[in-house]
Amino acid sequence: MTAALPSAPSLPEEAWSANRLNERVTNTGGICPGYVQANLAILPKRDAFDFMRFAQRNPRPCPILEVTDPGDPEPKLTAPGADLRTDLPRYAVYRSGQLVDTPTDIVGLWTDDMVAFLIGCSYSFEHLLVAEGLPARHLEQGVNGSVFLSNIECVPAGKFRGKMVVSMQPIPAGLVEKAVEITTAHPEVHGGPVHIGAPEQLGIHDLAQPQWGDVVHLAPGDVPVFWGCGITPQQAAIESCAELMITHYAGHMFVTSQRI
Amino acid sequence: MTAALPSAPSLPEEAWSANRLNERVTNTGGICPGYVQANLAILPKRDAFDFMRFAQRNPRPCPILEVTDPGDPEPKLTAPGADLRTDLPRYAVYRSGQLVDTPTDIVGLWTDDMVAFLIGCSYSFEHLLVAEGLPARHLEQGVNGSVFLSNIECVPAGKFRGKMVVSMQPIPAGLVEKAVEITTAHPEVHGGPVHIGAPEQLGIHDLAQPQWGDVVHLAPGDVPVFWGCGITPQQAAIESCAELMITHYAGHMFVTSQRI
Repeated sequence: MTAALPSAPSLPEEAWSANRLNERVTNTGGICPGYVQANLAILPKRDAFDFMRFAQRNPRPCPILEVTDPGDPEPKLTAPGADLRTDLPRYAVYRSGQLVDTPTDIVGLWTDDMVAFLIGCSYSFEHLLVAEGLPARHLEQGVNGSVFLSNIECVPAGKFRGKMVVSMQPIPAGLVEKAVEITTAHPEVHGGPVHIGAPEQLGIHDLAQPQWGDVVHLAPGDVPVFWGCGITPQQAAIESCAELMITHYAGHMFVTSQRI
Repeated sequence: MTAALPSAPSLPEEAWSANRLNERVTNTGGICPGYVQANLAILPKRDAFDFMRFAQRNPRPCPILEVTDPGDPEPKLTAPGADLRTDLPRYAVYRSGQLVDTPTDIVGLWTDDMVAFLIGCSYSFEHLLVAEGLPARHLEQGVNGSVFLSNIECVPAGKFRGKMVVSMQPIPAGLVEKAVEITTAHPEVHGGPVHIGAPEQLGIHDLAQPQWGDVVHLAPGDVPVFWGCGITPQQAAIESCAELMITHYAGHMFVTSQRI
C-alpha cells in the first residue's frame, strides 16, 4: 500500500510546508490559485549587484518582485515566514555555467552572503488571461506551457549577458489585442508580449520543439504570442559562466503570499 | 550690457550642453516638454547594492529608470551621449548625512567606482495630468510645487532608511479619481498617490510650510493629493548618515532622451 499523494495545496503556507518535507516534488502550475508564483535566482553578494542591474534592464523576462538582504533566506516582503532554502519543490544549481545538480533543498549550499531574487512568473498572468475569458491551450491539452530560447539579446550588465527565454501562448487572432491589454497592465508578471505572430523572427523555427516545457498545439485561427520568461536568468548563468547561481527547477516555482 | 539668458531648451541635448557650460543654472520645470526628467542619486559601489534594494522596495518615491555601470557617467539606456558629471544644472553633495556643497558639476568628485541612479520625477506626470485636462495649480500660480517630509517610514534596505518625501498637488474633488487613474498607469514616474485628503495623517500640519519648493494654494473644492517624491533618497542620505551621496539639487533635474 502506498501513501496517498497529498492533495494540491491551496495556501502558500501549505505549499512551503509540503516542500520542506519533500511531500510533493512536482510542477506548481495551478496550485494556490490567486497567489503570485515566482522564479528564483540566488547568487553570492559579489555578483548580486551586477545581476540586479541585469534584471532591471530586462524587465520583460526578469521583473523583480523582491531581493532579499544578503544572508537572509526569508523573503520578508512577499512571503514572510517562508524559507527559500527549502520551500520550493526542486532547485537547479549552476556552477561556471554548467547545470551540476537539481536538489530538493539547498540548505547545504546556502552561505551568509547569498542574495535571493524573486522574479515574476507567467503562471500568474495565465490566471489573469483565463479570468478574462481567454483560452489557455496548454491547460485544455493537459500539458505544461511551451518555452523557447529566442535570438533576442538581453541588455547586458556587468558580467551578465544572454539571450532571452520566452514563453509561447496560442491566442485566437481576435483576442490578441485583449491579451496585450491585460498583460501590459501587469509589468510585475512580465508585462506585454515581446513578439506576436512570427516565431522565425525570434529564431524559433519549429513550435513543436520547445527547449523547456511541452508542445502546445495551436487551434485553427490561433496566433503564437511570446512573452519574456523567468528562465532567462538560467540562460544568463550559462552564457555568462557565472561562478554560482541557484535557481528554481523549471516549472517548480516559489509560491508567494501576494495575491494577484 | 549683460548677455541675454539663453532661451529654455526644448531638446535634451540642448539642456545637457547648456548645463555643461553653466549657461542656465535654474529649475528645469517646463523645459524639454515631452521628455522624461529624472532625479539623480550617485553612490560609491560599496553602497550601491544596498541603495538599489532600498529603491526597489520603495517604488513610489524611488522608481528606478536606470542604474549605470560602476565608473560610467553615461546613462546609455535613457540618455546616450549625456554625462551625468556635468549635464545637470546643479548638484547637492551629502557627506555623512550632511549637505556639504551644491556645485554646478561633480567632475572632481567622480571616481571609477561611482554608480548613478536615475529615478522618475513628478515633472513628467504633471505633464500627463495637464494633457488630460487637469489643472496644475502651481503653474497657474507661477510657483514651484510643494514638497513635504511625511511620517511614512520607507522600507529599509541594508544601511538605508528614512521617511518618505512627498509632493502635493491640489486636485478638484471631482477629478481625484481621474488623477489616480492616470498616475497609477505610470509607475515609472511614481505611480498612484500615496495619500489623498488628510495631510495630518502624514504628519503634515500646515500646507503653507513645505520643506522644499513653494506654497501652492488650494482653490475652493480642491483636495490635497500626495505622491512619492524623488527627493526621498536625499532624506535617506541624511537619516542613514551615508558616507557619500551626490544628488541633483532640488528642482534642478536631469533631462533624459526618453519620451513620456
